[in-house]
Amino acid sequence: MKSLLEDVLKKVHKGKLTPEEALNTLKDYPYQDLTFAKIDHHRELRKGYPEIIYGLGKTDEQIITIAQEIINKKSNLLITKVGESTFKNLKKKIPQAKFNPLAKTISLKQQKLVSGKGKISIITAGTSDIPVAEEAAVTCEILGNEFDKIYDVGVAGLHRLFGEYNKIKQARVIIAVAGMEGALPSVIAGVVDIPLIAVPTSVGYGASMKGLAALLAMLNSCPGGVGVVNIDNGFGAGYLASLINHL
Amino acid sequence: MKSLLEDVLKKVHKGKLTPEEALNTLKDYPYQDLTFAKIDHHRELRKGYPEIIYGLGKTDEQIITIAQEIINKKSNLLITKVGESTFKNLKKKIPQAKFNPLAKTISLKQQKLVSGKGKISIITAGTSDIPVAEEAAVTCEILGNEFDKIYDVGVAGLHRLFGEYNKIKQARVIIAVAGMEGALPSVIAGVVDIPLIAVPTSVGYGASMKGLAALLAMLNSCPGGVGVVNIDNGFGAGYLASLINHL
Amino acid sequence: MKSLLEDVLKKVHKGKLTPEEALNTLKDYPYQDLTFAKIDHHRELRKGYPEIIYGLGKTDEQIITIAQEIINKKSNLLITKVGESTFKNLKKKIPQAKFNPLAKTISLKQQKLVSGKGKISIITAGTSDIPVAEEAAVTCEILGNEFDKIYDVGVAGLHRLFGEYNKIKQARVIIAVAGMEGALPSVIAGVVDIPLIAVPTSVGYGASMKGLAALLAMLNSCPGGVGVVNIDNGFGAGYLASLINHL
Amino acid sequence: MKSLLEDVLKKVHKGKLTPEEALNTLKDYPYQDLTFAKIDHHRELRKGYPEIIYGLGKTDEQIITIAQEIINKKSNLLITKVGESTFKNLKKKIPQAKFNPLAKTISLKQQKLVSGKGKISIITAGTSDIPVAEEAAVTCEILGNEFDKIYDVGVAGLHRLFGEYNKIKQARVIIAVAGMEGALPSVIAGVVDIPLIAVPTSVGYGASMKGLAALLAMLNSCPGGVGVVNIDNGFGAGYLASLINHL
Amino acid sequence: MKSLLEDVLKKVHKGKLTPEEALNTLKDYPYQDLTFAKIDHHRELRKGYPEIIYGLGKTDEQIITIAQEIINKKSNLLITKVGESTFKNLKKKIPQAKFNPLAKTISLKQQKLVSGKGKISIITAGTSDIPVAEEAAVTCEILGNEFDKIYDVGVAGLHRLFGEYNKIKQARVIIAVAGMEGALPSVIAGVVDIPLIAVPTSVGYGASMKGLAALLAMLNSCPGGVGVVNIDNGFGAGYLASLINHL
Amino acid sequence: MKSLLEDVLKKVHKGKLTPEEALNTLKDYPYQDLTFAKIDHHRELRKGYPEIIYGLGKTDEQIITIAQEIINKKSNLLITKVGESTFKNLKKKIPQAKFNPLAKTISLKQQKLVSGKGKISIITAGTSDIPVAEEAAVTCEILGNEFDKIYDVGVAGLHRLFGEYNKIKQARVIIAVAGMEGALPSVIAGVVDIPLIAVPTSVGYGASMKGLAALLAMLNSCPGGVGVVNIDNGFGAGYLASLINHL
Amino acid sequence: MKSLLEDVLKKVHKGKLTPEEALNTLKDYPYQDLTFAKIDHHRELRKGYPEIIYGLGKTDEQIITIAQEIINKKSNLLITKVGESTFKNLKKKIPQAKFNPLAKTISLKQQKLVSGKGKISIITAGTSDIPVAEEAAVTCEILGNEFDKIYDVGVAGLHRLFGEYNKIKQARVIIAVAGMEGALPSVIAGVVDIPLIAVPTSVGYGASMKGLAALLAMLNSCPGGVGVVNIDNGFGAGYLASLINHL
Amino acid sequence: MKSLLEDVLKKVHKGKLTPEEALNTLKDYPYQDLTFAKIDHHRELRKGYPEIIYGLGKTDEQIITIAQEIINKKSNLLITKVGESTFKNLKKKIPQAKFNPLAKTISLKQQKLVSGKGKISIITAGTSDIPVAEEAAVTCEILGNEFDKIYDVGVAGLHRLFGEYNKIKQARVIIAVAGMEGALPSVIAGVVDIPLIAVPTSVGYGASMKGLAALLAMLNSCPGGVGVVNIDNGFGAGYLASLINHL
Repeated sequence: MKSLLEDVLKKVHKGKLTPEEALNTLKDYPYQDLTFAKIDHHRELRKGYPEIIYGLGKTDEQIITIAQEIINKKSNLLITKVGESTFKNLKKKIPQAKFNPLAKTISLKQQKLVSGKGKISIITAGTSDIPVAEEAAVTCEILGNEFDKIYDVGVAGLHRLFGEYNKIKQARVIIAVAGMEGALPSVIAGVVDIPLIAVPTSVGYGASMKGLAALLAMLNSCPGGVGVVNIDNGFGAGYLASLINHL
Repeated sequence: MKSLLEDVLKKVHKGKLTPEEALNTLKDYPYQDLTFAKIDHHRELRKGYPEIIYGLGKTDEQIITIAQEIINKKSNLLITKVGESTFKNLKKKIPQAKFNPLAKTISLKQQKLVSGKGKISIITAGTSDIPVAEEAAVTCEILGNEFDKIYDVGVAGLHRLFGEYNKIKQARVIIAVAGMEGALPSVIAGVVDIPLIAVPTSVGYGASMKGLAALLAMLNSCPGGVGVVNIDNGFGAGYLASLINHL
Repeated sequence: MKSLLEDVLKKVHKGKLTPEEALNTLKDYPYQDLTFAKIDHHRELRKGYPEIIYGLGKTDEQIITIAQEIINKKSNLLITKVGESTFKNLKKKIPQAKFNPLAKTISLKQQKLVSGKGKISIITAGTSDIPVAEEAAVTCEILGNEFDKIYDVGVAGLHRLFGEYNKIKQARVIIAVAGMEGALPSVIAGVVDIPLIAVPTSVGYGASMKGLAALLAMLNSCPGGVGVVNIDNGFGAGYLASLINHL
Repeated sequence: MKSLLEDVLKKVHKGKLTPEEALNTLKDYPYQDLTFAKIDHHRELRKGYPEIIYGLGKTDEQIITIAQEIINKKSNLLITKVGESTFKNLKKKIPQAKFNPLAKTISLKQQKLVSGKGKISIITAGTSDIPVAEEAAVTCEILGNEFDKIYDVGVAGLHRLFGEYNKIKQARVIIAVAGMEGALPSVIAGVVDIPLIAVPTSVGYGASMKGLAALLAMLNSCPGGVGVVNIDNGFGAGYLASLINHL
Repeated sequence: MKSLLEDVLKKVHKGKLTPEEALNTLKDYPYQDLTFAKIDHHRELRKGYPEIIYGLGKTDEQIITIAQEIINKKSNLLITKVGESTFKNLKKKIPQAKFNPLAKTISLKQQKLVSGKGKISIITAGTSDIPVAEEAAVTCEILGNEFDKIYDVGVAGLHRLFGEYNKIKQARVIIAVAGMEGALPSVIAGVVDIPLIAVPTSVGYGASMKGLAALLAMLNSCPGGVGVVNIDNGFGAGYLASLINHL
Repeated sequence: MKSLLEDVLKKVHKGKLTPEEALNTLKDYPYQDLTFAKIDHHRELRKGYPEIIYGLGKTDEQIITIAQEIINKKSNLLITKVGESTFKNLKKKIPQAKFNPLAKTISLKQQKLVSGKGKISIITAGTSDIPVAEEAAVTCEILGNEFDKIYDVGVAGLHRLFGEYNKIKQARVIIAVAGMEGALPSVIAGVVDIPLIAVPTSVGYGASMKGLAALLAMLNSCPGGVGVVNIDNGFGAGYLASLINHL
Repeated sequence: MKSLLEDVLKKVHKGKLTPEEALNTLKDYPYQDLTFAKIDHHRELRKGYPEIIYGLGKTDEQIITIAQEIINKKSNLLITKVGESTFKNLKKKIPQAKFNPLAKTISLKQQKLVSGKGKISIITAGTSDIPVAEEAAVTCEILGNEFDKIYDVGVAGLHRLFGEYNKIKQARVIIAVAGMEGALPSVIAGVVDIPLIAVPTSVGYGASMKGLAALLAMLNSCPGGVGVVNIDNGFGAGYLASLINHL
Repeated sequence: MKSLLEDVLKKVHKGKLTPEEALNTLKDYPYQDLTFAKIDHHRELRKGYPEIIYGLGKTDEQIITIAQEIINKKSNLLITKVGESTFKNLKKKIPQAKFNPLAKTISLKQQKLVSGKGKISIITAGTSDIPVAEEAAVTCEILGNEFDKIYDVGVAGLHRLFGEYNKIKQARVIIAVAGMEGALPSVIAGVVDIPLIAVPTSVGYGASMKGLAALLAMLNSCPGGVGVVNIDNGFGAGYLASLINHL
């Protein structure tokens, strides 16, 4: 916030703003109040990215209202954890929006973002982990990154992973998605020196405890170089990967 | 119970009650037995508030019977954690009752309560936390309090919170509602010296463990001045805030 | 922070501060940097209370250095979760400081604080819960409150609690401390209409899970009016009680 | 099993059985093999009670086949944790069977059992706990016990409990059923000297963790004399209470 | 409490007590206040048993003071969860007291209690479970019960259990103590029709989770007739067994 | 993988492969890439068994495509954790496939496998555990093993188990399936010297915590000789049993 | 137990035993009662192995008494989870006994056991896992098995594992020991078709939760063929491996 | 591993290696076998960093032997989670090694590493979190990174954090270390667009559950851009930060 503060202080100093006006500027500028939501348009300046809408627990009406405001500002749109019925309602107002049925995301690119410097490898242990990987992929795309998808190369058949070793080695960041025993990120981190974001998934049953087993395994990864995000949090992995890829 | 006891003892002493009558008075007076429920009409005297009906796990028939008895006594009515279908059934018997679809509450004000001395600030971290905040708001209202609603000012964009700082600072009690990482109450408690009731919500997924993450965070709040209630317990927060606000 | 900001802005407006000086003021004023700790002297103004030192995990040297700076500012001193050996070292530098061996606190009153308006009742379920209650008591005292101690009145003999009912009823705030099944706060909240702060303790064994059983019980208290703090957090209870008592 | 063994050994000794026949007797006698279930008809002799059918996870066909075999042996029938649709199917084959929609039990009394010596008090904290209490009541009944139902006397209004104190004091065994903070059994055990079976229920939300909070509270009951059964296990409580009541 | 109340009311009615005196009687009679502890001498009348001192978390001084008051009233003394060093200090004041080094109890019989009607079988799965069984045994003894000790008959060698079958079958109540997989109570409950109190112990390591595995197993016991107490709670088992045995 | 490597190295040595061709061989040979899945045809050589399809979390389309590729290679087919609707879709493409409605498996035997050396005993504690046992049975069958099914012989009536003792004693491997308190594997392991695979099931409620209680009990089995698989993992038990039976 | 029963029945039939004598035989034969322990000498016949002494929670005196009885019967001795001080005391009575300071075991071979048919591979992920592996090795040895130790080949450097691939491939049973993320067993099970016993260890900190993370990972192993034992249970792994190796 | 494989294949192709020699090369080259440990010297080539020794659970002798081999190869040395007594023993053999008493690390720089491109900000919430931050700092240093230490700026006094905002904004990677409620990383991630590695610490008590509360909070961080490592895993954070900083 400092640059904003600096700017305001300078204006006050030069007499261009009264203290009262300055306080108002600081209070009113950075977000737009819809009562039930305060859209953070300033984030695009502050953090380089538009505000992403987390769909869970919001009504369709709330989602659509927020989405329209973002669209009006010509920002890119990304809504995560959202069902097809919401999409159908939203489409009436924003017909160009796209739905990814695996990733459960709605998105719309209106603006070109600065491209990331390298490629992001998005890798899954199994076929059932693909929805989470797709959420990561959609996020990487809307934030301006190139990526490879390498799916179903888990530890039940390590040679499948090694068959993709060359491709993986060339990534600038790796997103490794796995449920069950969650061993894939540890195995990959053991053979490469690339920042790796581990995403546990809720794939599994019984003692997988809805992804807790995979989460704990990843947090305890014996090889270093692994940062972990929440269970099924493809978005979070894509966002962090994009930050790193844009360095 | 002492005043009741004192009163009875005095009557016994003056010969106005036999010991047997005294025992009956003590046994029969304070509640009304509906077999499946014992309505605590005495609570209004003892605790200053009417009995609130917790809707979960009760049949519509049970809820309506209890509600009617409360209405008959001219008390205010509040039913929490209750669905719209119950409301439709109840409305046939109590047509003036009102349903709040976000808060999932049924209420009816019949009696004016003593007003609280100040304002209660009800603050949420996100839009998805609003239903819990609304349950708190309905409770604050039925118990005779003024309040401000300040929604969607979580740590993902702290400047939104600071934009509301002046309003918050004037509250007598704060109710801070947050899911996910549950950081909002700690952040607020770090900048004000006002009693704060923290309400974790089940908003989130995966390692949020249905609100457990937020609950633990709030219990471990580094700044002091924070009391925590159950996950999604908007009612409990409103009730405690009202007690404090009426001091 | 607004009043500080307002003040600075006014000075800038009047030409008494350059923007650069203003930024420095905002940056340098409110805390004192000891490298390993940043003492928040501003808190006394902002929150009405001095910074309290949480002793766990700090070296004796760190604790003593921070304590001396607080003493130098003529503030009141409170250090919690601290052992007797630390006290012995600290006493060489701050000979007037006092150690409470049950509460495991070091304190020194240098300044009179505004008195709270009523009394705080500090109640324990058992004798083993007393150390946590004493931490609450020391905190209440250093923050300017009167209080009653009512110890060992848990549900194993409810008549002991009712024997103290008159005293409890006159409190402005109640702190109820219990381990094991943690039923005491619920029982008290069922018979009074006073804000109650519940403190679970780690007293117990086996399925008490170091206080988790009592914590969960208190969070699920059927009667309303209960706010919960962390297990064994006597300080947090005293601090919140004091905020309420000063309203 | 010793009496059976003794009997067989005596017959072998007297030449009434060959060793081979003896082995067959021991192997074949005590249960009836339906491939998917082995009905323990011997239990009625060995344990004094018929085998009770636990309905969860069994197909309707399996339940009905087992029930018919029990009916054919003229035993009393009790099926727990069973839905109304199963009852409708079963009724076609066993038209006299009765369904308790609150308790979710099917039962049929064909045989008089020895009566228990005293009364069992079945007490609930709230209205929402009644289904579990009803499962206990049905079980007590089918096993030959008299009982009182005392519902909705939890700690939110202790005077309701004390109003029933005389009735409770006369019980030979108490079953105390509570969800949420689970304090009721501890409170009762603090004022009577009667064996008490505590039944936690899944009534509650959030930090009640589907009854875990109440379970832990009951296991940590400060007053003695409390034995705990599984969450929502009304049957288990009724069964144990009946064993004690028949001593 | 009713009889006390009745008695007081009658005296008030007959003019033998003023209301003020009556209130004082009710308040002062039933316990003795040592500030840090309120000894419940009334319990002996109310519950038939003296107050037992739970040693954990109490200072030696507190324990000894309470013990002396109990001794002065000519009650029997039982202190649980207490170390040998406490015993050495206590012996100076109460030289006749006895320490059980396995059970970690101090006891002194001054008064004969009414004998229980039958025998209590105290059974352990392994040798390592003996200390908990001994705590149960000491408790049974001080409360006036006969008992058998049957140790080390767990499921690793079921024939050892069956070798004791005759003895077990004659018990009026069974206390079954087991750590690790906690299967013993379920196995016994499957072959007898006697009330069984299951005591999980913290014997084991790793996934035994300090007794949690055994506790959960016992709560889920497939055969009925099992009531569970806290992990390592030999006292609680003995107390409940004694209540049942005195019916 | 060594034999493959050896083979390739030899070919390179003899000039039959260039290093580039060798690398391609190593990379491309062992699996078939369907983008969303990489079928491990090499597994049949490497591990002696075909790849089994885990159905949970896969779309019908994905399952059917993978199944067809396996069928095309003349391998045996096994799909686990799959619903009847998937089977109906799959049947259109692979009409000979069979569905086991209890086990929730689809299978098709096209190839005879080497027979295991002995019999596998598949034992359940209750009727509700049968679906998991059936998954194990289907797996044992498709992998070339003979087996006995011994159902409903849990600890609630141990004599039922002992009635089957002779059959069990002759097994080469035992699979013991139990929910609730999970005691059956420990009891069996206490009386035989045969490798035993314990399968906890999610049968139960409340403190069974969806099979966690049974899982912990089995991991803490006092008798040795017990290996545990995931909750409800009939497939895993059958697979491991088959490996042992083929030694 | 059937052969014993058969034998006794035959003797009764031939008049060589009275029923009373038969009952005594059945009751007294199979174990030796030391009051605090019942040594299962019959196990050697029944299960092929001597009783192993689990040291945790037993006093030195108890351990030594049991050990002497086993030594007197000329059985092999194995004591697990035992400290060096116990060994020093035991050595005075059994001077030939040996202590393994890593494995924390005392053992003495007096009798040759039948050799297992193949080799057991004992593999650890790290150096810190060696103590658990050593407990497994001592157990394998005392039960008559050959084994290889392959230590420190975890996923942080997979090529170390593949360097040992030839040795591992030749094992008849594999014991894979790992803490932290517990990925090693899954990786090995992915490349061999050999029964694998996975042993989680408590190596790690924080979210390893004393081995729980590794335990959950192993239970969720994506490749099949993995049976899991308790955390740090080297003995259990060795015992099960020996059973399999002797098939 | 591909480059190694390529190289070997080329040599085989050119006849410079026989297949047997090639296999030996592949097997023997990359690590050094000390029986109890296999040092991964190849890692320096493969991953760019030397093998770091995790000290927990290793004997002093093991640590020193491994350290000497690393020193002999002229690699940089880092040992984590190690006590001062180990350092004293190690110093006799490697006198130049340095011990950091806060971080509990031993290190020795022998070789200059490629410098990272920017600065890493290492930030703690409190003074008690410093040891974990120091472990991160030592790791950053040995891996060739510049860094700032910003300690004690947690949410209890947010203005302390904002006072350091300019410094933080210039970092290329942020490491945010916090115990208790773990809010700091979320707050920072809400105001910057820099990759952030969150390190929960075990600072706290009661419901902090040894860092679990902070861990869960960080995994659920509402703002994106946060990757989490294990509780107290300063090393892991430093390692991942270094990987990112060297991109």
